[in-house]
Amino acid sequence: MTANGSETGDRPARSGRRPGQSGAREAILAAARVRFSEAGFDKTSIRAVAADAGVDPALVHHYFGTKQQLFGAVVQLPVDPELTLSAVDAAPLDRLGEAILRAVLGVWDSPAGPGIVAMVRSIIGGGDTSLARAFILEVVMERVRQRIATPDDDGRLRVALVGSQMIGLLMGRKVIGIEPMASSPAEDLVTAIAPTLQRYLTGEIDTPPTKPN
Amino acid sequence: MTANGSETGDRPARSGRRPGQSGAREAILAAARVRFSEAGFDKTSIRAVAADAGVDPALVHHYFGTKQQLFGAVVQLPVDPELTLSAVDAAPLDRLGEAILRAVLGVWDSPAGPGIVAMVRSIIGGGDTSLARAFILEVVMERVRQRIATPDDDGRLRVALVGSQMIGLLMGRKVIGIEPMASSPAEDLVTAIAPTLQRYLTGEIDTPPTKPN
Repeated sequence: MTANGSETGDRPARSGRRPGQSGAREAILAAARVRFSEAGFDKTSIRAVAADAGVDPALVHHYFGTKQQLFGAVVQLPVDPELTLSAVDAAPLDRLGEAILRAVLGVWDSPAGPGIVAMVRSIIGGGDTSLARAFILEVVMERVRQRIATPDDDGRLRVALVGSQMIGLLMGRKVIGIEPMASSPAEDLVTAIAPTLQRYLTGEIDTPPTKPN
Repeated sequence: MTANGSETGDRPARSGRRPGQSGAREAILAAARVRFSEAGFDKTSIRAVAADAGVDPALVHHYFGTKQQLFGAVVQLPVDPELTLSAVDAAPLDRLGEAILRAVLGVWDSPAGPGIVAMVRSIIGGGDTSLARAFILEVVMERVRQRIATPDDDGRLRVALVGSQMIGLLMGRKVIGIEPMASSPAEDLVTAIAPTLQRYLTGEIDTPPTKPN
């Protein structure tokens, strides 16, 4: 059950470097979409996707790179999340909130931004949020969570709180267009929101609020 | 051009208390939807809606109450926003963040919650966000903004920041379903998020972040 749909007469057999590329690519993407939807990111292996698509695992790596990059292709991310995540990885723990904001606002405000907004709107309007949930929980948040986890606190609520503020910022700035948030310079939003994210990540989040001083 | 579509033979003319009720109601709603979409909440008057619908302004008040309640009917809010806003109005300025969270989580977690989630998903997925923007900016946020505004700061960015965190919380808890946020007790979320909202409303938001102590 190999998926090899591009064997046309005008390409000599065995001489092309990637014979049947587009058919195999599509088969891999289709298999990955089903696996990621049903099993989530963590429990999906490149090997299983390759088996479903009837190709060698090396071909999956050759076309798509890492499992995360394959996931990005499945959800049709207009940017490689690895670039953003690397910038966040490089930040010290006590500047993590600021680094997340700068990295994410940089992508949203880039030429890739409208594609991201369109994807988010379609996911939220479309009914099946399982891929969005898997992406947010298992790709974007997981690396940050591992950095902030302690023996007493797995950090899951902390990264979910960060995610909620970032999703809301995307909605306010890019989808609904709430002014002045929609047209504020990114740095003003970093200044306003970074302390929120930093507290969610490394501050007190289980002490009931007291009257501000 | 009155809209009176319910004159059926089995109801005696002039004796019903609300003759043509459903036709007039629908005409008012249709006229209000157009006005609110095109002019926003502030610049739409009950008088103009009544004129467009060919009815007396008193009939609009009779059927729908205040302009805000008419707006709620247009966007098919499953709850009367006045109830939530009153609870927030009653809170002292230095507990406003907590009051907003409790009031909003109370509505989302109530039997009306699924209707709100469905409405939000349809608005975000559907393309036209102008009514959502008008509702968030001019109804929900405006009363809070007026309370926190000072001569030096109109409070617009502050309430937009609050709105972004609340929209993101709705997405994480109710739409995308990010755990443990989706199933946390509401009070845990109040504890974690109230200081964020309180700082956005009455704290420093224009000082660049420094290293946390």
